[in-house]
Amino acid sequence: MANHISSRKNELVKEIAGLVRSVENRRAQGLFVVEGARLCYDALRSNTTVRRLFFTPKAGEKYHDYLEPLAEQAEEVYTVEPHVAELLSDTKSSQGVFAVCTLPTPAGLEKLHPAGKYIAVENLQDPGNLGAVMRTAEALGISGLVLFGTCCDVFSPKTLRAGMGAAFRLPVFEGGEFTACAAQLHQRGFTTFAAVPDSSAEKVTECSFPAGSLLLVGNEGNGLLPETIAACSKRVTIPMGGRAESLNAASSSAILMWEMVRS
Amino acid sequence: MANHISSRKNELVKEIAGLVRSVENRRAQGLFVVEGARLCYDALRSNTTVRRLFFTPKAGEKYHDYLEPLAEQAEEVYTVEPHVAELLSDTKSSQGVFAVCTLPTPAGLEKLHPAGKYIAVENLQDPGNLGAVMRTAEALGISGLVLFGTCCDVFSPKTLRAGMGAAFRLPVFEGGEFTACAAQLHQRGFTTFAAVPDSSAEKVTECSFPAGSLLLVGNEGNGLLPETIAACSKRVTIPMGGRAESLNAASSSAILMWEMVRS
Repeated sequence: MANHISSRKNELVKEIAGLVRSVENRRAQGLFVVEGARLCYDALRSNTTVRRLFFTPKAGEKYHDYLEPLAEQAEEVYTVEPHVAELLSDTKSSQGVFAVCTLPTPAGLEKLHPAGKYIAVENLQDPGNLGAVMRTAEALGISGLVLFGTCCDVFSPKTLRAGMGAAFRLPVFEGGEFTACAAQLHQRGFTTFAAVPDSSAEKVTECSFPAGSLLLVGNEGNGLLPETIAACSKRVTIPMGGRAESLNAASSSAILMWEMVRS
Repeated sequence: MANHISSRKNELVKEIAGLVRSVENRRAQGLFVVEGARLCYDALRSNTTVRRLFFTPKAGEKYHDYLEPLAEQAEEVYTVEPHVAELLSDTKSSQGVFAVCTLPTPAGLEKLHPAGKYIAVENLQDPGNLGAVMRTAEALGISGLVLFGTCCDVFSPKTLRAGMGAAFRLPVFEGGEFTACAAQLHQRGFTTFAAVPDSSAEKVTECSFPAGSLLLVGNEGNGLLPETIAACSKRVTIPMGGRAESLNAASSSAILMWEMVRS
């Protein structure tokens, strides 16, 4: 039997709302929140640990098939009034389904597979872009995502939504500052590619990506840091016939990852 | 000297708000609304006819450099109070700058260039996806966009935003039902390619796209209509190593368009 929460002042609700709003809270508590019946079910199927489940009575009926296995795994299950669900939601029109899950710890670079082909992002700021990169990476069979510098959070509501569950399955690694680990990566046999909008760089169409490749893409507005570009093994570019400045981070990453795995 | 509007009940404001909200109003009046200083300026630079300009006093100061040339071309210029600007806005945090522009008439298929390489979409529903496709098409130097079936509106606020101004420059054609015009396209020498998630189709990596190509992508959930696929010259697919179902419409279109112009 589920507990019922009808007050917006409920302490647990406040705590969960804090997880939705802030990456600091997520990291401090080792938890994150998944919103939406399908995405919650996707988390469960992908072996994410579901700790608490919240849903509105209406959602309980509508999404019964998704909620049943979720409720079975969750340690605690709560029904909440719609006005309480609003506090937990990051969307305009919420389905009223929320799962509080154990936050995975990102692996260090020592866990990169020596034969893998990885997409790496540096200082990527937009959750929609990060989610899109992860979703495409998963679809194309990229080995994983490496985060350099200060990127937006993989487990924010917006990134999770844009990634359509890729965050539950795509291996994620945290590298800190690229310049501090470049030499070690190269020693271990990795080739690092800096994606740059520069026609003097090697064309991605003429470039081969060996086993053990990291392809780095930079911040939406400013691209990669100059010192990162300098520290990479190679510079690659997308040769374009049109208005090259129009290609956004998600689309250029899609094309670059595609070239990395294309055969 | 600009006229000033301080009432949300102003008739002109109601009329413009109607253009923002509804494609029927846009088509009936032959007008559409561009929101945001940069995008309005982009419309002007791309030879879109700016008829009316609206901005808040605050925006007038902040975006002076963008607004000056816009005000010069517009037939009418209005300053509006922030609570009035809200009615014209499609965004949560509006800049308070709006241009009412002449709606371009989409060309018919007879205007397709016989040597062009076109991206075509059928029943595409999401304005964000349509905008992303247009933006990438422009960046890659695709000849234009062809709309088949019932697609979302190229000139809706969301499509314009996602397209980052591509709608002002990328040629757009309207084809109606694909099956009704396929034979004529083929007679004129065009090769039509149906993008399908089907491993029995020709791999896009092994396919050559001659001058006079149309590549058709379908609806987000359902893909192309079966009769459209049957009527196309060829079927092409993106060979993928990962979870192929995860590739979204914008990313798969980016890869397909890239392959069409890749050399």
